[in-house]
Formats: sequence, structure tokens, C-alpha cells
Amino acid sequence: MHPILIRNNVKILGEGSQVIVFAHGFGCGQSSWKYITNAFLEDYRVVLFDYVGSGNSDINQYDYHKYSTLEGYACDVIDIIDALGLKEIIFVGHSVSSMIGMIAALQRPDAFKQLVFIGPSPKYLNDRDYIGGFEAKDIETIFTNIAEDYVGWARAISPVVMDKAEKPELSDFLLECFEATNLSIALAFAMATFKADYRKQLKDLEIPSLTLQSSNDIMAPQTAGEYIHHNTPNNFLVVMKATGHFPHISEPEETIREIKDFIGNKKLSQSEDQLFV
Amino acid sequence: MHPILIRNNVKILGEGSQVIVFAHGFGCGQSSWKYITNAFLEDYRVVLFDYVGSGNSDINQYDYHKYSTLEGYACDVIDIIDALGLKEIIFVGHSVSSMIGMIAALQRPDAFKQLVFIGPSPKYLNDRDYIGGFEAKDIETIFTNIAEDYVGWARAISPVVMDKAEKPELSDFLLECFEATNLSIALAFAMATFKADYRKQLKDLEIPSLTLQSSNDIMAPQTAGEYIHHNTPNNFLVVMKATGHFPHISEPEETIREIKDFIGNKKLSQSEDQLFV
Repeated sequence: MHPILIRNNVKILGEGSQVIVFAHGFGCGQSSWKYITNAFLEDYRVVLFDYVGSGNSDINQYDYHKYSTLEGYACDVIDIIDALGLKEIIFVGHSVSSMIGMIAALQRPDAFKQLVFIGPSPKYLNDRDYIGGFEAKDIETIFTNIAEDYVGWARAISPVVMDKAEKPELSDFLLECFEATNLSIALAFAMATFKADYRKQLKDLEIPSLTLQSSNDIMAPQTAGEYIHHNTPNNFLVVMKATGHFPHISEPEETIREIKDFIGNKKLSQSEDQLFV
Repeated sequence: MHPILIRNNVKILGEGSQVIVFAHGFGCGQSSWKYITNAFLEDYRVVLFDYVGSGNSDINQYDYHKYSTLEGYACDVIDIIDALGLKEIIFVGHSVSSMIGMIAALQRPDAFKQLVFIGPSPKYLNDRDYIGGFEAKDIETIFTNIAEDYVGWARAISPVVMDKAEKPELSDFLLECFEATNLSIALAFAMATFKADYRKQLKDLEIPSLTLQSSNDIMAPQTAGEYIHHNTPNNFLVVMKATGHFPHISEPEETIREIKDFIGNKKLSQSEDQLFV
């Protein structure tokens, strides 16, 4: 098999000629999509994968230098696009994968048709009047906590970012994902994520994109989603009823509905105001 | 996506670097493997597909001339091998796909590591002292029945070839597969199958192969399996407790066990006599 398909643990599921690639975020693997992918199998060719260092990828091919920036992760996406000969895909990225998808789309615009950002942020650090939600000291604390007690940190953060107290099994699932990730790689991925600043690139993204913004997300506050919406041509913003940073896990039905609504192009004629619910 | 992957409705499932390709037989699609594939997902990269004209392949690309011989079907296998960059695969073929796999393996020996034949036959017609199980008039009757009343023929044949009266849902499932196949393509596939004679090529197949022979299979009698075994270098023969032409549906556990036993290479030191059970 093409070595990329093994390296990135690529799966192909579903029917139809339109491809949807689902790209997981920090601390997860493709299993994080399991609550929503079934809804797409009947009408779409679904491609799942794990970034090198995540999930069941080939960890031996992990490279600390390459994956010290989101451009390194975007290389994984482009490698998969080339290995499978993908064109005009719909790319659904969660969290940091939103900007990874944007980077890949700017490098290979012919390969992308639409982008869906779930809980995106162009920059996690606050910067004068830009509110990313984190001060430098907050991020340093996160790095220290990951380095000194990764599992303890993961145990503390999982219920907070899931924000679905009535279903503790969901934050337990997320914790299992975190725990399955190599500590050093998790730290390096966190560093690549939190130092990122892709605000300037947003203006160059011309294909239609959707920002799915949770109502209460401590990782990606609404100010971050709104920044993307206001600075990206053809970006649509939906503020979901879902709370937390993992709406595709905590509120799969709402997430499925919003993705399908967008990729079916029903939103293209809506005004911005209507999209704020 | 690479057009071959859409054309042949290719799926990639499972984990690991060793690829197993499962190739369905006449009247079926990849869904016919659903009773056994789960047992391979933990340790193998599983590739499923539908031949053009079968299952959910792109029927618009069906070509009566190309698919009038098993070589045409072998082209599908090789196209998929090239599209995914497959090397040293394990190929599991059911029924007519056994010889299709052999043809592909002779054309591209580097791409194949092992072959598993489930209910194979190198020639369905009797020929002097060779017993394929069918006289020319039998086959003409089959063609006529398919052409004149395909669904009626499928309804009559399904319980006979499944040979699992205590589980009528299995022959019902097979009937659904038959019914989902285009009549004219089914007839052409039957003609390509029943006119085939690959006895002379067997001697050239050098990679290890396994013949899984059911105990009572009206499509591929034990004489056919034994002919393959005696005329193919490195072929191993297992006569299963399973009866009927679809042991991977009627006796999935025995089929899984025998395939795993073979691909784990445990059989390579066994003598021929031990393999006859």
C-alpha cells in the first residue's frame, strides 16, 4: 500500500463521488469522529486519517522539527491528497485542524472545494485588541502541566473542554484519547498549536468555509470564530447551541445538521445576520 | 479521489501494514464479506471493492467486451493495486475471483504475497477425465434461465448454493445481492465465468496459495479444488466442514480460522496428507 496510507492510518468509507476528509485535533485521532461519520456514509466518500504521532499513525515517522509548526501537519494532509488523488474535497477540521486545513487549501486550492472549521482559532494568544483567550503565562502553565503530569492535566481538562457533565462517558472517551497520545508528541503538538498565528493568511482563503462556533468554548472563544468570519472571504459563521470544544462529540446531531446544511450549499444565500442564532 | 477508487467503490479499513484484499464473486459485491472482515481489522489493512458492474461500482464504466473474460476483471484488481500502491498483498478471492486473483498475480507477481481461493474452479465444464461439475447443456440452461427469469433463477439457486437451511436469512441475503445486480451484466459475468479454463496457467503460480474447499459445493466440486491443489506449486488444500458455495457467509468462524491459519504461515510445514481433513 502507498506508504502514506499506512503512515497516516488512512481509511476510506462510504459511497459517492464527493469526498469528505475529517481531520482530528490535538490529543485525538480519527476515532474522535465516530459520533458523526455514519451520517455521511450514504452520500459521501469519507476519508479518515491520523496525523503522524497521533492515533494509530506510524509514530516512527514522527519528526519533532517537521511537526513544530502547523505547516508540518498540513504536509500530512497534502500527502494524503496526493496519495489518493483527491480533488475538490470537503475538509472538516476540528480545532487546530481548521487552520491546518486552511494552510493546505492555500497551498493546493484545486484540491479543496469547501472547508468546515469546528472550534477554530487563528491565534490562541491575546494580542492587543485581538482576544484569542490566552495570555502567555496561561499557555506556559499548560506546557508545564503537560510536561510534568500529562495524564493529570488531561484528566482535569477533559470534562472542562467537553462541557457535557450529564454524559461523563464523553469526557472519559476524550481522556482515553489523550492518554493514548505520546507525552512528548502531545507537548510538541500543543506548542505548535499555541504559538500559531494565521490571522494574516485568512484573507487569501477564497473557497467557501464554515465556522462552527460553540457557545462556550474555553479553547476557541467566540471572538476567535468571529475574527475568522470577518477576515475570511466567503466564510459563514454559525454559533451553535452546543457548548464546549468538541461539539462533534457532545452534540453530534446539531454538528451533522450544520455541516450538511453548509455542504449542501443552503447557506450561500443567507445573510450574515441570519447566521447568528 | 483517484477515479479507480470511485469506479470500484474501494474501501480501506483496519490497522496494520499487511494488506488483505477481499474480492467478491459472481452476483455479489463487497457486502458479501461482512461476516468475516471484522475478524481481520485489528491486525490487517483490509481493502474491499466491487468489480465494475457489481455492488456499488460505477456501472457506467461497465464494458461488455472488456468484461467478457476474467482478464477484464483482473484489470480491475490491477488498477486498484496501482491506485493504492499495493505490494505483497494477501488476496482472498471467492469463487470466480480465485482465478481472477491468479491472473492478476501472474501479471504482477511483485504485488502478491499469498492467495486464498474460496470455492475455486479452474474450469466449470467437464472435459474428458476432468470433472468441473457441469456439462455444456447444464451451462446453457443456466444462461437461458438467467436471461429469461433472472430473479426466479436467483430465488431458486440461492438456498441451494448457500446450503444452510437452518439459517434462511443467509440465502435471503444472497438473493438480495443477486437481485441488486443488473440482469445483462449478471448474464455476461456468468458467461465469462463458465467459459473460463485456467488449468494451464496454474503451474505458473509460484506464490503460496490456499484452496478452501467446501464439503458440498455444486458450483465448485471437490474435484475442481483437488485439480488446483495438484497442479499449482505451493498450493495448500483444506476441505472444510462447511458445505455450500459461500462458506464465508454460512460458516464464517471456520473460514476466518482457516484463512488466519494460512496467512500466519502455520501451514507451510504441514504435509499434504494432514491438510485433508
